[in-house]
Amino acid sequence: MDDGCSLPAFSALASMRNHKTDAHMRAFAEKVFASETKDEDVREEISMFDVADCPILHQEACYATMLIAATSFHSLLAAIETSVKVLLNAEYILSPSKKHIMHSQEVLVPLLEEKPTYLEVPHFQRVAITGDYAAGVTMDDFELACKGLYRALAIREKYMRLAFQRFPNTASEFLRNIEGENTLILEPVFTSPPEPGEDPFNTKTLPPNPGYVARMHEGVVCIYKDAAAADKNQPLNLPAPDYATFIDDMNFLIALIAQGPTKTYTHRRLKFLMSKFNVHEMLNEMEEMKELKNNPHRDFYNCRKVDTHIHAAACMNQKHLLRFIKRSYRVDANRVVYSMKGKEMTMKELFESLKLHPYDLTVDSLDVHAGRQTFQRFDKFNAKYNPVGASELRDLYLKTENHIGGEYFATIIKEVAGDLEDAKYQYAEPRLSIYGCNSNEWTKLSSWFNKHRVFSANLKWMIQVPRIYDIFRARNFVPHFGKMLENIFLPVFQATIDPQSNPELAVFLKHVTGFDSVDDESKHSGHMFSTKSPKPDEWDIVKNPSYTYYIYYMYANIAVLNQLRRERGLNTFLFRPHCGEAGAVTHLLACFMTADNISHGLNLKKSPVLQYLYFLAQIPIAMSPLSNNSLFLEYNKNPLLEFHKKGLVVSLSTDDPMQFHYTKEPLMEEYAIAAQVFKLSTCDMCEIAKNSVLQSGLSHEEKVHFLGTNYLKEGPEGNDIRKTNVAQIRMAYRYETLCYEFSLIKEGVKGD
Amino acid sequence: MDDGCSLPAFSALASMRNHKTDAHMRAFAEKVFASETKDEDVREEISMFDVADCPILHQEACYATMLIAATSFHSLLAAIETSVKVLLNAEYILSPSKKHIMHSQEVLVPLLEEKPTYLEVPHFQRVAITGDYAAGVTMDDFELACKGLYRALAIREKYMRLAFQRFPNTASEFLRNIEGENTLILEPVFTSPPEPGEDPFNTKTLPPNPGYVARMHEGVVCIYKDAAAADKNQPLNLPAPDYATFIDDMNFLIALIAQGPTKTYTHRRLKFLMSKFNVHEMLNEMEEMKELKNNPHRDFYNCRKVDTHIHAAACMNQKHLLRFIKRSYRVDANRVVYSMKGKEMTMKELFESLKLHPYDLTVDSLDVHAGRQTFQRFDKFNAKYNPVGASELRDLYLKTENHIGGEYFATIIKEVAGDLEDAKYQYAEPRLSIYGCNSNEWTKLSSWFNKHRVFSANLKWMIQVPRIYDIFRARNFVPHFGKMLENIFLPVFQATIDPQSNPELAVFLKHVTGFDSVDDESKHSGHMFSTKSPKPDEWDIVKNPSYTYYIYYMYANIAVLNQLRRERGLNTFLFRPHCGEAGAVTHLLACFMTADNISHGLNLKKSPVLQYLYFLAQIPIAMSPLSNNSLFLEYNKNPLLEFHKKGLVVSLSTDDPMQFHYTKEPLMEEYAIAAQVFKLSTCDMCEIAKNSVLQSGLSHEEKVHFLGTNYLKEGPEGNDIRKTNVAQIRMAYRYETLCYEFSLIKEGVKGD
Repeated sequence: MDDGCSLPAFSALASMRNHKTDAHMRAFAEKVFASETKDEDVREEISMFDVADCPILHQEACYATMLIAATSFHSLLAAIETSVKVLLNAEYILSPSKKHIMHSQEVLVPLLEEKPTYLEVPHFQRVAITGDYAAGVTMDDFELACKGLYRALAIREKYMRLAFQRFPNTASEFLRNIEGENTLILEPVFTSPPEPGEDPFNTKTLPPNPGYVARMHEGVVCIYKDAAAADKNQPLNLPAPDYATFIDDMNFLIALIAQGPTKTYTHRRLKFLMSKFNVHEMLNEMEEMKELKNNPHRDFYNCRKVDTHIHAAACMNQKHLLRFIKRSYRVDANRVVYSMKGKEMTMKELFESLKLHPYDLTVDSLDVHAGRQTFQRFDKFNAKYNPVGASELRDLYLKTENHIGGEYFATIIKEVAGDLEDAKYQYAEPRLSIYGCNSNEWTKLSSWFNKHRVFSANLKWMIQVPRIYDIFRARNFVPHFGKMLENIFLPVFQATIDPQSNPELAVFLKHVTGFDSVDDESKHSGHMFSTKSPKPDEWDIVKNPSYTYYIYYMYANIAVLNQLRRERGLNTFLFRPHCGEAGAVTHLLACFMTADNISHGLNLKKSPVLQYLYFLAQIPIAMSPLSNNSLFLEYNKNPLLEFHKKGLVVSLSTDDPMQFHYTKEPLMEEYAIAAQVFKLSTCDMCEIAKNSVLQSGLSHEEKVHFLGTNYLKEGPEGNDIRKTNVAQIRMAYRYETLCYEFSLIKEGVKGD
Repeated sequence: MDDGCSLPAFSALASMRNHKTDAHMRAFAEKVFASETKDEDVREEISMFDVADCPILHQEACYATMLIAATSFHSLLAAIETSVKVLLNAEYILSPSKKHIMHSQEVLVPLLEEKPTYLEVPHFQRVAITGDYAAGVTMDDFELACKGLYRALAIREKYMRLAFQRFPNTASEFLRNIEGENTLILEPVFTSPPEPGEDPFNTKTLPPNPGYVARMHEGVVCIYKDAAAADKNQPLNLPAPDYATFIDDMNFLIALIAQGPTKTYTHRRLKFLMSKFNVHEMLNEMEEMKELKNNPHRDFYNCRKVDTHIHAAACMNQKHLLRFIKRSYRVDANRVVYSMKGKEMTMKELFESLKLHPYDLTVDSLDVHAGRQTFQRFDKFNAKYNPVGASELRDLYLKTENHIGGEYFATIIKEVAGDLEDAKYQYAEPRLSIYGCNSNEWTKLSSWFNKHRVFSANLKWMIQVPRIYDIFRARNFVPHFGKMLENIFLPVFQATIDPQSNPELAVFLKHVTGFDSVDDESKHSGHMFSTKSPKPDEWDIVKNPSYTYYIYYMYANIAVLNQLRRERGLNTFLFRPHCGEAGAVTHLLACFMTADNISHGLNLKKSPVLQYLYFLAQIPIAMSPLSNNSLFLEYNKNPLLEFHKKGLVVSLSTDDPMQFHYTKEPLMEEYAIAAQVFKLSTCDMCEIAKNSVLQSGLSHEEKVHFLGTNYLKEGPEGNDIRKTNVAQIRMAYRYETLCYEFSLIKEGVKGD
């Protein structure tokens, strides 16, 4: 193993594997993938697939592989840490949570033997299961499933650590507990809110240029000490994920989610979790409510809640946009606002050319609201972004780049932010687009951001990248997929290395907290990501790469970028793609490996293994049942309630208030409807609100303020009921339930 | 027949009937009633009941009875009109709608033969049914059902006319068309909104005292020319319903709703209506939307909508109440606001005695929101009216009568009204309670109303009378039920006869638009209303009378009161009881006879005959699916969508925002959730909003302003799309569908 650079470390891991097994696994994965592209009936057959064919069913071979993976993963992690330390030439800066984590590790008591006790958790009725812990499956199957789940978690932990994303302490401790080792926790870094009087657009505190050079190599940006090193292709040793290892890990997971015993086991565990919550609710509902009633001055209304998934171009409701258009016309009718084929037009002329008068406009003629026509029609839905069906109006009102420099769009967003500031307890994470069509998109976007000073303490920015390479390629905007990746990521690396070269972008990046990957997931590219896939700079066909291909390359670049930014003392980015809204379950698998958290996740319904893994890893899911109701799934069939009951970490988000909501407070509308239709208790609603804060890119300082100083601790210890209004009984129930599931897996892994 | 007084006219009608048939019918009705008190299984059996036993199945006898009823009803109506004219000593003042109605009658074309055509209805695809019109039942059954439905409609028309309540022109013309006669339309009268600068509390325009005397006789107030006539029991000839006739009519309807062929026929018609709407929607949805898009300046947001059912004591949302309490404490902590057992207390002392500090209060500790605990528990729900479970706080903040003269309650209501005025397009009809415990309740309530000037153009007042005689009797507050009725109605009659004797009450009554009857319908009194029931002044037992008994006596008094008020040139009152939220279907039957419109109506699900009759008579139903969701029926099982599709006239209302809603705009929340869960189109929502305006007690002037000058016409003629934003295609569909159903019945009635 090469200690100097982590990329070879990953390759080493790959090469240590039994290549025959990997080939087997790849073949199987391809078979599973093929089934995803077929219709439902065939898929049904495949789910009946005899798992005896699956290589990981050869239990000994499987376990051997796993041991190797576990061991090499640890050497690897150590290598990463060493290398990062070397890189920083200093003692590693502990994340703010470090101390707590160490502490909580000390108090963690053995899991199955006795229940942990906490301060201030009132007495409540617990559901205890005695007797056989193999949970109704054979001992062999039980052990097989547990080992698979354990390895899956180890895979996720590896990719989270590499990219400075989050992996829960509880799961991490459980892995360490099996492995008998310890590890450093690398946490993401968000920009603190400005101090009173501090200018969020200040460019003076930007760090100096160390002279590094960034170049894209096979779709992933590499950092070199200088141009000479770059020419010799001697990159700095930032630990980045390795392509071949990633595909091996992915193939392992593809096999795992189709593996019969694991499917049975996870399905049974999820059913149990559901029933357990129902019993808990029946027994302790009144006690939880009592805690909340006795909690002074805090109720659902003044709990902080974050709209964790919202697109900036649709963040105002339809009535707001309508009013804004009418108002802008009253003030600016004779202003030149548009240029069509070089001819400048006043707003009056523009509306005349559209045969419209703003006075007559209504929400009906505006036609931006999703209706029954958009159900299962994402294509029609996308057209709803055009007011009155006119792309000219979208350009004028909902774009950052137009004849008036995106002034109207900035004003609308600041009005939305003003409403949030007035509401005081509501925050939002709007997405702005970077397409990758052109290398100056970032400069334009950050110039818009700085010029209009689009900053609000209640907004945290996200960048969304649409998966529409095929469209750009067809129009010859980009020569190959690699160029698109370069346009998306290289400017960010450059502004990270030399902020003063593009201070506006450097400032903007301080306020960006993550990346999203967006588009219609139900479109199928027909491509499967494998070692045989062309590299991005070889991908010059018009066909779109697969979801997983996009996800991998975004993740890989973000991981390297975060390493670099961390070294530079800058904030890092989370990867928070749209995932599982529609399409194949493999999307959820790719994000299980790479994403800090996801939006939608509906398709977790279809895979018990992934659903259980999302539960174990406590991956936050920003759900938007009103959006789903208009696009993919009727409201009362939405799995939000089911996921919440089972203990998956769900939050509520609006997605597109312009298209889906009716009232002035879209986020409250979203909560109110969920509360009514799913009959959520106050405790449920506050728990969901708390999840939204944890999931968000709010800074450490804000999270401390909103959730309490111990918010990074898991379980009731980390819950400050005075701030969250979540009952300690609920927190204890969640924590004990999660620990119990881990304890079962531990038994299964050790049983061999 | 005695022409001088209508009461004997009713009796004459009764005496003309075959008494043996009536006895049969009563026996049958009692059997049906008995079944309502049993559990579901037994009810199922009864619905299988062999209708051969039903006297009205003896077809000839039935038809004879019906002819008699129809004929005598007409002589009766003529008598009423004559008597009213004589009474007024002048040409009868036509209702504002009179002219239109006459006109629309002229343009009404024969129903089955050809389709009516309208101006400005765009072309749309119609569903035409050709072939046998007996709709899949035997000819005998078809004719039998049609005759029963025809008679039922005639019964409703009679009771509506008597009380100056509404009966749709279309149905009325259909009855006339069969009978070949014509009738005058008596419409309700509402107080016009004050002119600019006019004081709504002005007492100078009240009419003088004609010296009449009002006395209660057998539960119904009678009007006498003077005290001497009263002593001789010679009442003025105000046409009032007759007790025996009412019971006969009721028994007929009880038999009808249990009659096999009618059940089959109506069930099939309703199924057809549902399917027809679905087809219409599929074919014309886009065309309807096109109309709305082309309709300038009007959309769902600026369509007028009325919250047709809301209780004043819960008309603010929980957060509003909480804020108000905190604010009042900041200002008034040292003010004497309460007196407990004669001891005066400041607000500070009051909160101390409750061991509370308002600063710590939260919506959780306030505990006024309905949750899962209230489902199917109306008793627990009622307790939610007490903030923090303390009746002291309910007294202080939510009562008109307390130590501070209801000041806080008046202030909160005015704040709610202010929000509605700001929203501009929203109106509400809050209910205030009159209990009938004491004869000075009206004086106190109207004094509160005048003192605090609780007037808003956006509020129309309703009086709700709780059905809790049993509680008052048990505590010996009233000696018998008659006294309770007297306390409820006599003061209103007196203020109507001599407004100057109680000018505050007379002014308040100008702003009252109707009466509501409220309480838990699922409680069963065990009493059945029949000729054998004790009269109200004989009803001195502690047991509560039945729902129908309450309804009859409220209706009878309102009918007489409206006759008197109409004669005096004053506004009349609508009877708009809570009905069909729970309990027996006979409640819906009683209200079919007596109520202008109802609240809830959920149980129409259980009786196809009544559901079809409510459709034919276009009886408005104020539905509150969010309230139901917390109390009686889960949201997605609510029949609102089904009723709406079938063509029943439904509106949306909040019932109790304090208990059920989360946002600042409860009515918009109600619409938004219905729109989302039921996937309502804009046209659906605007149709429901239009229904709410028609159902409400808004004045003629306001309805003209909000719906257009022709609003009293039915069908597309009466629809001004520029104001309602309801597509003409929809209006035409509704009107043609209704006419087609009537034409079928006409065929059935004539077929014999």
